[in-house]
Amino acid sequence: MTQLQLAREGRISDEVRRAAEAERVEPERLRQLIAEGKAVLPANLRRERKRPAAVGLGLRTKVNANIGTSADYADLARELEKLTAAEEAGADTVMDLSTGGDVAAIRQAILDHASVPVGTVPIYDAAVQAVRAHGAIRAMTAEGVLGAVRAHAEQGVDFVTVHCGVTRAVVATLSARGRLCGMVSRGGTFLAHWMQAHGQENPLFERFDEVLAIAREHDVTLSLGDGMRPGAIADAFDAPQVHELMVLAELAERARNAGVQVMIEGPGHVPLHQVEAQVRLEKELCQGAPFYVLGPLVTDIAPGYDHITSAIGGAVAAAAGADFLCYVTPAEHLGLPSAEQVRQGVVAARIAAHAADVAKGVPGAAERDRELSARRRRRDWAGQLALCLDPRLARALREGARPSDDETCSMCGEFCVFKIADESRRP
Amino acid sequence: MTQLQLAREGRISDEVRRAAEAERVEPERLRQLIAEGKAVLPANLRRERKRPAAVGLGLRTKVNANIGTSADYADLARELEKLTAAEEAGADTVMDLSTGGDVAAIRQAILDHASVPVGTVPIYDAAVQAVRAHGAIRAMTAEGVLGAVRAHAEQGVDFVTVHCGVTRAVVATLSARGRLCGMVSRGGTFLAHWMQAHGQENPLFERFDEVLAIAREHDVTLSLGDGMRPGAIADAFDAPQVHELMVLAELAERARNAGVQVMIEGPGHVPLHQVEAQVRLEKELCQGAPFYVLGPLVTDIAPGYDHITSAIGGAVAAAAGADFLCYVTPAEHLGLPSAEQVRQGVVAARIAAHAADVAKGVPGAAERDRELSARRRRRDWAGQLALCLDPRLARALREGARPSDDETCSMCGEFCVFKIADESRRP
Repeated sequence: MTQLQLAREGRISDEVRRAAEAERVEPERLRQLIAEGKAVLPANLRRERKRPAAVGLGLRTKVNANIGTSADYADLARELEKLTAAEEAGADTVMDLSTGGDVAAIRQAILDHASVPVGTVPIYDAAVQAVRAHGAIRAMTAEGVLGAVRAHAEQGVDFVTVHCGVTRAVVATLSARGRLCGMVSRGGTFLAHWMQAHGQENPLFERFDEVLAIAREHDVTLSLGDGMRPGAIADAFDAPQVHELMVLAELAERARNAGVQVMIEGPGHVPLHQVEAQVRLEKELCQGAPFYVLGPLVTDIAPGYDHITSAIGGAVAAAAGADFLCYVTPAEHLGLPSAEQVRQGVVAARIAAHAADVAKGVPGAAERDRELSARRRRRDWAGQLALCLDPRLARALREGARPSDDETCSMCGEFCVFKIADESRRP
Repeated sequence: MTQLQLAREGRISDEVRRAAEAERVEPERLRQLIAEGKAVLPANLRRERKRPAAVGLGLRTKVNANIGTSADYADLARELEKLTAAEEAGADTVMDLSTGGDVAAIRQAILDHASVPVGTVPIYDAAVQAVRAHGAIRAMTAEGVLGAVRAHAEQGVDFVTVHCGVTRAVVATLSARGRLCGMVSRGGTFLAHWMQAHGQENPLFERFDEVLAIAREHDVTLSLGDGMRPGAIADAFDAPQVHELMVLAELAERARNAGVQVMIEGPGHVPLHQVEAQVRLEKELCQGAPFYVLGPLVTDIAPGYDHITSAIGGAVAAAAGADFLCYVTPAEHLGLPSAEQVRQGVVAARIAAHAADVAKGVPGAAERDRELSARRRRRDWAGQLALCLDPRLARALREGARPSDDETCSMCGEFCVFKIADESRRP
């Protein structure tokens, strides 16, 4: 049985108990959220996870790190380094998006080594196989696409992105509307390309019941991909994006009715003034299904700093109710990230998630701020640095600008406000 | 005459004309905003600026970079390096906060070398002199405090932070309320410390008319400092902060009535859900006076990444109407920043400012995003990189993860969505 089915029967699974403990919420509360479809607990029956992660309403905002090879960089060791970097920096999940090398073996290695839930995008696998066997993405078959979902489910993947909303009708809306950047979702593009070449409907839509059967058998959480996510802020919140979201809302309802855990993926490039509205629309249309956003990036002009542009959008999105942030690294739009860029991406997304958790009142979130600031006020440097999100970097920066007086920092020195306040208090 | 006095007489000064041109607004529109007190044009009569910067309603959000020595790092050459780094990264103004070495000479050098408006905090100077001459901040005198403001004005400083709102009544509110981190404004702390030691009122408040006379004589823009800015998110939006803001609102009105340009400084550490309300309160209370915020930092827990925490807060603040962002560097809370950290701080603040300008519809802001994305869609790599906020870094990151196919990047390679879309279009 899936976590959703168990939760609906009023049963608190071990997995729910462990996730609730990690989250510091009552197991019964988490069970209820899962039963209502307002939270998911990605947990393939075939795999054990040291660090479970529930995603949804009122829970700590989670952060995903995308790793995986490309044709140009297809080294397993490098990917395992990125996995370690992501987990050490505090990623709650990872997705393996490999498209280079022996993708099945790489996926297996990541599943074996990861402590956290692992997600994938099976359509990438189907496309890679079609290109390798027949030299073209259009050589994919409907059976191959479904087969990739099944293979990943059987391998133990905890959640899969499936672009079920890239229907012929949605693609027609895109064609009619036009866009600055068209489609930028890779999975969505592969499917649309195939659909055009064959004049057929998206098999992930047409055969959605089969997708549900696979997901239910292994308790794979479906992450309904947004093939129409805007790739430029000028394209945000347009007809194709909203049309697809309406399709995803219906599919999410079908998934829940079938006992399958489901979340919705969201943008993408979104100007700051639209971020909150995007989240509210998803929450309303999709009846509170967890919202998993990529960024959002609030400007297109800062390649090299897209971990920052997406931290801005991610914080605002999560404060408005988004539950799950897919990180963006400084390498976004420029190339495949290194392990160090993975680390930077995770930290930036965690800052966004934490700022949002404080804003939306997630229990316990503001306590860490309070404790760090209390230590700062006491000029307890060791204590303060230990509580930082990245103690190692904070210590290194302090060392790099050493004060002559260890009680202060080299910015203020004897003009330290806390030191002066303490002196003022002395009789 | 000050820019405010000229504007009120309906005269468009050369400085207004140049600033309007840089801003791509009508000079008459800028004149009107200045006349209404909704924009300021920091422009000391004694100094020429190659790059003027108007700050206020509907204008491009401006970014300030704090530079300056400390007791531990008192090297002029290093400060000039930081000045260059700040200007090259696109800072619209700089503030010299020097407290180490020959502060008057350093200030002069910065005034001589800067292309942009320069601000200072004269109370730092008064405190440094008191400590050097008499070994204690409490050895400052009211005359010395006013004298520092006069000296800076005569030297050509374009805007000064004056903590006129740290009154005895406001300090009493702080004492009554208590706070996790007390006061964290250095200028405010120096004054409160002196006021307590001498049992006297803040001379910048008591003798505000003299401050106004100095400012008017040289057309120094007053930046009314927020001595009560919260230094921890737990302290935000509390009674002392709001009490001081009410005092600043009254002083701002007196300044405008005296023909003196004035803006209001704001926080600080502010949780994300309060940022917009903080801006709206300032705009209402202070009758639209330009709002100059430090950050805001939306969490206390990320020293080493406070350029990111403040980019989140700064973007949201500026989108809500804040006009001027004081950058925060990765060294904040840890030490005096290096030139490289200054650069990082300016870029992060510019991302926030630009994202906000898109959100608030500043004319021309979204055009650059549109053009960069159009080039991305065409796979025009050279054109795309040239339009980036930091072309050098973007090029370096692309080089660091070189693709085998120059038309794509090493993330997607042959699976490039734009390449596939182009192929789909071919007959």
